Amino acid sequence: MPRIAYVNGRYVPIAQAQVHIEDRGYQFADGVYEVVPLYRGRLIDEEPHLDRFDYSLGELEIARPMSRAALKLVLRELVRRNGLSDALLYFQATRGVAPRDHKFPARVKTAFVATIRRSRPPSAAAIEQGVSVITLPDIRWERCDIKSIGLLPNLLAKQKATMAGAFEAWLVEADGTISEGSSTNAWIVTADGKLVTRDAGAAILNGITRQRVIKLLENQGIAFEQRAFSREEALAAREAFLSSSSSFVLPITKIDGHAVGEGKPGPVTRRLRDVYVAAALETPVLI
Amino acid sequence: MPRIAYVNGRYVPIAQAQVHIEDRGYQFADGVYEVVPLYRGRLIDEEPHLDRFDYSLGELEIARPMSRAALKLVLRELVRRNGLSDALLYFQATRGVAPRDHKFPARVKTAFVATIRRSRPPSAAAIEQGVSVITLPDIRWERCDIKSIGLLPNLLAKQKATMAGAFEAWLVEADGTISEGSSTNAWIVTADGKLVTRDAGAAILNGITRQRVIKLLENQGIAFEQRAFSREEALAAREAFLSSSSSFVLPITKIDGHAVGEGKPGPVTRRLRDVYVAAALETPVLI
Repeated sequence: MPRIAYVNGRYVPIAQAQVHIEDRGYQFADGVYEVVPLYRGRLIDEEPHLDRFDYSLGELEIARPMSRAALKLVLRELVRRNGLSDALLYFQATRGVAPRDHKFPARVKTAFVATIRRSRPPSAAAIEQGVSVITLPDIRWERCDIKSIGLLPNLLAKQKATMAGAFEAWLVEADGTISEGSSTNAWIVTADGKLVTRDAGAAILNGITRQRVIKLLENQGIAFEQRAFSREEALAAREAFLSSSSSFVLPITKIDGHAVGEGKPGPVTRRLRDVYVAAALETPVLI
Repeated sequence: MPRIAYVNGRYVPIAQAQVHIEDRGYQFADGVYEVVPLYRGRLIDEEPHLDRFDYSLGELEIARPMSRAALKLVLRELVRRNGLSDALLYFQATRGVAPRDHKFPARVKTAFVATIRRSRPPSAAAIEQGVSVITLPDIRWERCDIKSIGLLPNLLAKQKATMAGAFEAWLVEADGTISEGSSTNAWIVTADGKLVTRDAGAAILNGITRQRVIKLLENQGIAFEQRAFSREEALAAREAFLSSSSSFVLPITKIDGHAVGEGKPGPVTRRLRDVYVAAALETPVLI
């Protein structure tokens, strides 16, 4: 069965899924996106993803491509047509097609594209033994709270991590603090046992999984801090993990080649992953 | 006559010029571009533009889409098929089409698209009376020397300038110095008569017109400095101007609402524009 994509109003086989070369997404990265996980037939945190999509569009003054109800129908139709139950739904909206000019075009229709792809969750080994990260300078722009398709610095960081045999790169700002990973949020349990993640702001993308973990922590009465932490603090941490829509909660057991704590996933990380998965499974199955 | 574009090996009417939605240019801004002016039938500074194209590709480890000779043929064919003599040639290369993943794909063919469009040079009024700029914080990434298609922060700045009735936005870094405009390089003649433009480095795109002006200054024995200058220094300047491939040398007579010097184009700016145009006209006409 060929994969079916949604492109500006039509469901088409992925091989025929095309956009105009003067789509401002292609010439300018003038657009935003979201990735919603489909986990065992459940769309995880769909509403918060759609809320953030609206936020990103609003910050860039891009008109919504369609109503929320219509967008939810498109996502469901993609799930149905592609017959998947564990997948990543990807959708992006760009300002539309217009002759190339930096200025926003006067009359333009928001372009909208959505795809679905079988998910490639972290391996059992990654979950049981943890993954490694390297640290790199954070060279991105100053509005990382907008989930824009302008991901070139993130790609370069992820590629450097891959070449170094690491799963992810943690990005270090000029002041020595870690903002986040190239496509994930960063968490540590400090040497004195405090659970810490970067505070939301323009320096990071406020991950939906990050927000879900925070809610779970509050529900469970587990203390945590939202603040900047340094690479040094991370190197001295008892535990470290990342959160993302595709990896959920994933232990990190090595940072720049140094073992984190005892070099294996710690109790806080393991508990949070279990709690996250349990909460995800409470989401009703689609249809 | 419909405009003809070049898309991955084929010349097609612009209305049919399409790329795949999983082109990494569309999902990631994973690509670079150039704009070469065609001025009275002359391709201006084609070789330096192609040199910079190679530089940008090299920095991102994107394979060249074709040989330089082939690329030059494509540009000439676009000029011929579209029958233009004053135009902007635009071309971009992206890492290619691959299932969405931050990591560089293992096997991928560089995608290449080129278009041509009638140029819209600055108006006679803009040249005679000068244009205005506003200043805005520079929120871009830290590799502005790469001419990437990830232009979202540039678009936002240009749009703010437009809304403020200005021609351009000059971008101010955290230390108070001006890097460049959203799509142009920035120049001033200081209060004590020194011609200054920002030094080339990761903070600015090393404009081809900027480089050409520097060569002309050297040829004419006119002293100049390449160094950072502050917004305050710009506000106190005798003259200010911008350089770009589409505007050449264009006087700036207002910065953030304050008149520059006597509020009209100064002698250095006017001379440099004349010298630039004369040099451009020395380029041989195509074919």
